[in-house]
Amino acid sequence: MEQSQHRYCVIMCGGIGSRFWPYSRVERPKQFIDFLGTGRSLLQLTFDRISRIVPSKNIFFITNEAYDGLVREQLPEAEPANILLEPARRNTAPCIAWAAWHIAALDPQASMIVLPSDHVITREDEFAASVIRGFEFVERNDALLTLGITPVRPETGYGYIQIGQSVEEKINKVKTFTEKPPLDLAKVFVESGEFFWNAGIFLWRADVIKAALFKNAPDVAAVFEKASDGVFVDPAKEKEFIEKEFSSCVSISIDYAVMERADNVYVETVSFGWSDLGSWSALYDLSPKNGDGNVTQNCTVLSYNSHGNIFAIRGEKLIVAEGLEDYIIAEADGVLLICPKAKEQKIKQMVIDAKMKFGDKYE
Amino acid sequence: MEQSQHRYCVIMCGGIGSRFWPYSRVERPKQFIDFLGTGRSLLQLTFDRISRIVPSKNIFFITNEAYDGLVREQLPEAEPANILLEPARRNTAPCIAWAAWHIAALDPQASMIVLPSDHVITREDEFAASVIRGFEFVERNDALLTLGITPVRPETGYGYIQIGQSVEEKINKVKTFTEKPPLDLAKVFVESGEFFWNAGIFLWRADVIKAALFKNAPDVAAVFEKASDGVFVDPAKEKEFIEKEFSSCVSISIDYAVMERADNVYVETVSFGWSDLGSWSALYDLSPKNGDGNVTQNCTVLSYNSHGNIFAIRGEKLIVAEGLEDYIIAEADGVLLICPKAKEQKIKQMVIDAKMKFGDKYE
Repeated sequence: MEQSQHRYCVIMCGGIGSRFWPYSRVERPKQFIDFLGTGRSLLQLTFDRISRIVPSKNIFFITNEAYDGLVREQLPEAEPANILLEPARRNTAPCIAWAAWHIAALDPQASMIVLPSDHVITREDEFAASVIRGFEFVERNDALLTLGITPVRPETGYGYIQIGQSVEEKINKVKTFTEKPPLDLAKVFVESGEFFWNAGIFLWRADVIKAALFKNAPDVAAVFEKASDGVFVDPAKEKEFIEKEFSSCVSISIDYAVMERADNVYVETVSFGWSDLGSWSALYDLSPKNGDGNVTQNCTVLSYNSHGNIFAIRGEKLIVAEGLEDYIIAEADGVLLICPKAKEQKIKQMVIDAKMKFGDKYE
Repeated sequence: MEQSQHRYCVIMCGGIGSRFWPYSRVERPKQFIDFLGTGRSLLQLTFDRISRIVPSKNIFFITNEAYDGLVREQLPEAEPANILLEPARRNTAPCIAWAAWHIAALDPQASMIVLPSDHVITREDEFAASVIRGFEFVERNDALLTLGITPVRPETGYGYIQIGQSVEEKINKVKTFTEKPPLDLAKVFVESGEFFWNAGIFLWRADVIKAALFKNAPDVAAVFEKASDGVFVDPAKEKEFIEKEFSSCVSISIDYAVMERADNVYVETVSFGWSDLGSWSALYDLSPKNGDGNVTQNCTVLSYNSHGNIFAIRGEKLIVAEGLEDYIIAEADGVLLICPKAKEQKIKQMVIDAKMKFGDKYE
């Protein structure tokens, strides 16, 4: 596949994935885990997918300082200079801003794709074709492009994008962004054909996102504008600058800071078997089930009168279950979680409670 | 406390305790486990209790060959010659018969108490007084004496003994033995004041139980009568004899073989805080509970909307539970069990199923 030398990728891999606790831990968050049992972590799968399209030397990783070692360990093919280490967690807008300033300094003609590192994509050829179409669009237009996934069910756990005027095949202006809808509304959205899942995958030229940040999130842009000439092409200077300035950014998402405010926002409607793998239920839905509708990960289960559960136990173990319906049973590194799937939104709070009671031990 | 030199004790400790799987395992059954967190296993506690009354050199252990090492390890004060090793599991009648033949050969005047090794007794002074009263009775009478525990609730998991004519203070003839009753009947039993729990603790003289076996279980008695003179006082000869003959005994309980048939059966009514610790529910009932009515053994639990559970996890671990009511959550040595307390009678079958599917690994 032809690879343009001006195309770049930023893989965001600094999240802590607490919705998958206790499997996903501060020390090894979900993107570094082989969740699908393929032998490759979600981050490695993300890299594999995009490296068919973007030259390896143009693939950047932006993550927390704590995960430098994990990225190097899992991706020996990554350029060490391409691992950008955040000294603090500031959500996606400052993260993307830094990447944009960095890449623009290397290549003023750069176009870039921003990828989360913890999604699942099953149809990689369609993914590749969609990404190429997206690159071509943003290279021709001063556009902020987001990918909208054709919904296959009235999911209430995702945000939706309503499409506006069509500008070319599969590309429309964005009319609205909508937060996670209640089920009734989600059903209406899906039936209408006008609403697509917001995947959090973006394409744009580096100069275009920089301009959008200046306009819509000037306080974030101002932090990076402080850098004197040459900072973003000199690793030692950049490190010093980031250590000093990055934490002064407000913590804000790129959606809220830019996408919902800018007027040059477009959506490419795509369909490539996508899941954000955002929760145990999402993993359950995605996984093959046995005759009783149970999903097992890495473990052997003997079950009686038990249906709709997901058993995810790290380490060789036999689980014997009786009378469990629709539970998550997950264990890793000294923590066993037993929680109804319907209550999984409580897991984040459980992690906080465990930290309050027991310190960092189980975080 | 004065100890009669003609008083003996037989501690039966060969059971596999599969109702406490996966905590209790073939390799280390429940009597070898410190279930109460006191620092002493149930077997050790049994030994401690009886050694106040019976001289240590008169305390015998009868167990499966596989547990020789565990008994020696846990009770270095036991006489090695007093550990009788069964080459096969044949229930309690052959086990007690061997012990009776052995002890009678050592001391024709012997009286003996037979104790299970996996019971809990909380009031040890009352236990000691009851046992002494029992010894005194069987030393004066050709009696088979069983202890009947004053019931404190209409338990449906125990057998009951109905008392007949009183023969002296706290000692009556046995009228009937009754299997585990349904709840309605158990309530009537308890209210009547005539029914006592069958604890499976027996006292008799060695010559009296031998005579009772000859009369009521002649096929079992015949096996031990085959032994030529001196076999039961010569360890090498006894071992050879037992290896050759023990397995030919039928597998039968002492209750069924003798107690329910003999006419010289008496019950001493006692009250010393007894539990047979026969199941997870029994352990739950016996254990201190937290504010949510949960019991934890060896583990740290963070629970939400969860009540009436018993969490027993070997090894340091945090358990986080949401929405669990009245479950057993037990883990040890590579097996995690999650089962409603009300379904615990299925555990024995689960062990069998696990063996069928995975071999001895999880037995």
